[in-house]
Amino acid sequence: MISIPATSDFSLHNIPFGCGLINNQFRACTRIGDYVIDLEECRIKDVFKDLTQMLEHTLVQPNLNDFIALGKTTTSEVRNMVIQLFTSNAWSEKNITLYPANEIKMILPVKVGDYTDFYSSREHATNVGVMFRDPQNALLPNWLHLPVGYHGRASSICVSDTPVIRPKGQILPVDSDTPVFSPTQQLDFELEMGFIIGKNTRLGQILSTKEAEAYIFGMVLFNDWSARDIQKWEYVPLGPFLAKNFASTMSPWIVTMEALEPFKVMGPIQHPEVLPYLEYEGPKNYDINLSVTIHTSNGVAKEVSHSNFKYMYWNMCQQLAHHTVNGCNINVGDVMASGTISGPTPDSYGSMLEIAWKGTKPVKMPDESERKFILDYDTVTLKGW
Amino acid sequence: MISIPATSDFSLHNIPFGCGLINNQFRACTRIGDYVIDLEECRIKDVFKDLTQMLEHTLVQPNLNDFIALGKTTTSEVRNMVIQLFTSNAWSEKNITLYPANEIKMILPVKVGDYTDFYSSREHATNVGVMFRDPQNALLPNWLHLPVGYHGRASSICVSDTPVIRPKGQILPVDSDTPVFSPTQQLDFELEMGFIIGKNTRLGQILSTKEAEAYIFGMVLFNDWSARDIQKWEYVPLGPFLAKNFASTMSPWIVTMEALEPFKVMGPIQHPEVLPYLEYEGPKNYDINLSVTIHTSNGVAKEVSHSNFKYMYWNMCQQLAHHTVNGCNINVGDVMASGTISGPTPDSYGSMLEIAWKGTKPVKMPDESERKFILDYDTVTLKGW
Repeated sequence: MISIPATSDFSLHNIPFGCGLINNQFRACTRIGDYVIDLEECRIKDVFKDLTQMLEHTLVQPNLNDFIALGKTTTSEVRNMVIQLFTSNAWSEKNITLYPANEIKMILPVKVGDYTDFYSSREHATNVGVMFRDPQNALLPNWLHLPVGYHGRASSICVSDTPVIRPKGQILPVDSDTPVFSPTQQLDFELEMGFIIGKNTRLGQILSTKEAEAYIFGMVLFNDWSARDIQKWEYVPLGPFLAKNFASTMSPWIVTMEALEPFKVMGPIQHPEVLPYLEYEGPKNYDINLSVTIHTSNGVAKEVSHSNFKYMYWNMCQQLAHHTVNGCNINVGDVMASGTISGPTPDSYGSMLEIAWKGTKPVKMPDESERKFILDYDTVTLKGW
Repeated sequence: MISIPATSDFSLHNIPFGCGLINNQFRACTRIGDYVIDLEECRIKDVFKDLTQMLEHTLVQPNLNDFIALGKTTTSEVRNMVIQLFTSNAWSEKNITLYPANEIKMILPVKVGDYTDFYSSREHATNVGVMFRDPQNALLPNWLHLPVGYHGRASSICVSDTPVIRPKGQILPVDSDTPVFSPTQQLDFELEMGFIIGKNTRLGQILSTKEAEAYIFGMVLFNDWSARDIQKWEYVPLGPFLAKNFASTMSPWIVTMEALEPFKVMGPIQHPEVLPYLEYEGPKNYDINLSVTIHTSNGVAKEVSHSNFKYMYWNMCQQLAHHTVNGCNINVGDVMASGTISGPTPDSYGSMLEIAWKGTKPVKMPDESERKFILDYDTVTLKGW
């Protein structure tokens, strides 16, 4: 058997898909324990049997789009064959290379055509409403009727470990009516997850909540970096723009919906009742633990949030049914992010805006420094398990 | 000489670029008078001399991205050589095929990576503010300080002549606090122009207003279809989403900035003064006549708007400097649209929302029917010259 640390998130039950540089070549990969596996090597060594021909060319691209486009029947079968390979000694007999994960550079797993960001955590939307609008009417009138979302920038989505440059822009100083030009003083993370579209629709095609599941390939961790001071000045009336589009960070590994199936749970009761096109049946939320840790440049770290994807008010099937109800078409590789995933308690809030409550409750770090927002040379780590 | 109708918008001074299906093959094309010219045929017949090799493969793609990515020096030289070809009799000597334009199916000229829509007409923003907010404070506080913009959906951008399906969605009836599900009752056009990005930037790179011009390849006509009732209910706080992303229509021809150079004019004086990164020198607006005509299904037509691109308050160089000031990266083929281009008088308003003033001033059509918004089977034509 292949050796997998007991605490690893990459057990044989996971088998995610990613895209890495192996010997300077693009390769579709999976990860098991601390090792990266080259799926093209597996293909050449006949691991995928009847699928060998069909998979040709799809595992050597700079992204997984062609592979994902083969369809869930195929990608799910590939995953099952990898599980079989490593459950037995076949991997050793076939002499499959185990690449130490820290030696392989992973790249963005998909070419993102369009990126949509939802706003589907009731706790997050409520916190923002309490802080910036009316504590008695924290949620806007539409929020409980539809999964609010907007379009983000696809070009600036980066893979984990890509440095983020503190953005400059227009900021309105307190008690002024004239903006100044400045680097953001309120650089924030947003703890999100995203799902990757696995199947195209045509323009005009509407997906029901039931059909939607077949269009979701898998999930990633997603950090929707935000400059709160830039956002505050620019976002009325057309929404966030430069406050968000300087960078978003995505995990290199896409965890498949097959791997997440055992973690399905019921979502919150939705009241008022939703319109028929948003009704759904059965468990559509997922029990996924999430955490955010800030690492300072002098080597100390603190977990500042522990949340869970199950808190989402609107589930992915509802988001996708809503997104397509007007006929908007989706494509393989599109990313749909959840919006900040905040839980009910302050230790589960998913952004510094909420954790430090607009700067009024700074976080004390182990080195006695304080964080209202993110400082230069901090590293922010999102985890999901 | 090639025969060009005197009233044609496709004179030898234009020479736009597009992508068409010629004998079922993708071909980069230009248009002269009523004819489409296959640029790959020109290449094979040695029209482009020293560039022949460099252009190989770029003129036979399903979009112009690879061609545009060659850079303005090359694409501008290609245009000049086409002008020379048809100014002399060389086209006849080389036996260049003239395809009747009505026999060639044109496709979307670029693969759009990201699509941004600005909101840069002061008249349009003022009209919207007067109608929906406060006539005394029609412009929002940020409007005169920055070119407001937001991200749109790239996947649903279609080429001219693509039918648009009336979108369904959530609408809040007057005097109700509960939305209903319905086809939009307020389908609108927005008269816009877009510019196509001709050169990539890297993440973190900031373009000055002076540098910006080199990144603009050319311009298209753009109809940002809008469902006003869906928009009104959904757009606070994150901006328009399903009200817009069901379809946007783009012209098949990209008119180059070289062709538009003679039409440069000074823009409006900007007051209050803009921040230094938005300052610019010289004429950066363009005198481009624009019109919108509604054709009914029973064969009558009426021009409902006559506007001009020169009315824009924020110019393209400012838009691009603003878009990149936070380090957001842009790519060849990205589309940046202007926002609705309204002029100062009601006959120059760029949307039915404004023309029929929220439905209070319906437009009388030649067949005595009325238009507050667009009806089923209407055809909307934008023209620019």
